[in-house]
Amino acid sequence: MNKNTKVNAAILIIGNEILSGRTQDTNTSTLANWLNSIGVKVGEVRVVPDEEKIIVDTLNLLRKIYNYVFTTGGIGPTHDDITAQSVAKAFGKKYQIHNEAFKILESYYQPGEFNEGRQKMVWMPEDAELILNPTSGAPGFSVDNVFCLPGVPSILKSMLGGLKNKIIGGEPILSHTISLRTVESEIANSLTNVQEKNKDVEIGSYPFFHAGKLGVSIVIRSENQSKIDECNSQILNFVNKKKIEVVDR
Amino acid sequence: MNKNTKVNAAILIIGNEILSGRTQDTNTSTLANWLNSIGVKVGEVRVVPDEEKIIVDTLNLLRKIYNYVFTTGGIGPTHDDITAQSVAKAFGKKYQIHNEAFKILESYYQPGEFNEGRQKMVWMPEDAELILNPTSGAPGFSVDNVFCLPGVPSILKSMLGGLKNKIIGGEPILSHTISLRTVESEIANSLTNVQEKNKDVEIGSYPFFHAGKLGVSIVIRSENQSKIDECNSQILNFVNKKKIEVVDR
Repeated sequence: MNKNTKVNAAILIIGNEILSGRTQDTNTSTLANWLNSIGVKVGEVRVVPDEEKIIVDTLNLLRKIYNYVFTTGGIGPTHDDITAQSVAKAFGKKYQIHNEAFKILESYYQPGEFNEGRQKMVWMPEDAELILNPTSGAPGFSVDNVFCLPGVPSILKSMLGGLKNKIIGGEPILSHTISLRTVESEIANSLTNVQEKNKDVEIGSYPFFHAGKLGVSIVIRSENQSKIDECNSQILNFVNKKKIEVVDR
Repeated sequence: MNKNTKVNAAILIIGNEILSGRTQDTNTSTLANWLNSIGVKVGEVRVVPDEEKIIVDTLNLLRKIYNYVFTTGGIGPTHDDITAQSVAKAFGKKYQIHNEAFKILESYYQPGEFNEGRQKMVWMPEDAELILNPTSGAPGFSVDNVFCLPGVPSILKSMLGGLKNKIIGGEPILSHTISLRTVESEIANSLTNVQEKNKDVEIGSYPFFHAGKLGVSIVIRSENQSKIDECNSQILNFVNKKKIEVVDR
């Protein structure tokens, strides 16, 4: 893949516990930060329930639109863990015991402990490629451009290192933040002008409240450092004219 | 609406800052917990970028599938705040100054401070109903079954109280949690049996690591307390037989 190609991804969070509000998802920001650092832009995130038809339909849509799809959740041993069977169905592949995964878990557990419940975790789509799990043994897997990771944040994080060679990103998405002691409405018009002069750069404006004071962080994002620098100087130009203080954030 | 009807909602998080990983979304769990408490089940969540066409298309899909749609983000004064104009476009309504919102902000700000940037926040779809903002003045709004809230979590939270009479929920979704000192694979088969005997109850299994010890929380969810009680006793039945310790979590 050409390094200049824009590479994108979708994140599919699978789990009733996120939809019910019981669990605060943090995997989206973990994955998005990591993907950005290797030049993959996250185009959308969806959170869906543990229902096979919904997972299958959503996967079959997203995997055609995006270069990569990352799923989180649903690969444990219990009845509500249905990601592997859903991925198999989405790709029209058999759902069966993965021999390599079986060997990994057989040697991970003490003799006699690799019980029927745990053995469910080695059922995967035919020909799935394993994503090794340095934390708790049970691997994730990928099929084509779909990468299936666990829902437990610490385990998910520990598995990203092993994915690096499998994901081919584009130019890393660079960003620069300017934090100002002002409110958004003071700079809205000037910032609109800068955005209009630099249409291919993403400029975001985010109010913050920090150490008892209001401020605004302006985030400039692009694959091209010189475009970021150009926007930065245009922004600092109106900031200086307006005598707005630049602060650390 | 009949109180026994199942009422559902989708959450649409609008913002590049979530997709880039810069900002950790917490509005999903806030909204989901609140909606559950008033008998509205969240069917899906989507996170989309600040792009009008994507927002319009997603809104027009979700508002037909779900009883309610809640958007967060994109109602501030800067160029990347495009939720109001996108909602107007989705409904084929004019995007114009909302007189009541204008009066609210005119009296909220000191004379002379209600500048052009701030006036952008009173541009809304024609006939929008206001959602009052007790924190920072600028109201949210609703059109038909679409409710538009800000992205800043503390402001969003403060606006939910004012929504209570506008959202008609079904039976509240009740839940009961049993936390066990075990691992998922020990209980997976027994739990599957309970789920199969109680197909209309949602049973989730979530591993946890707390105070240095592993455990599993089983969450039983239903609108019907007696169904929850029945599942609870079936689960405690196998838990006792397996001599698994029940713990607080």
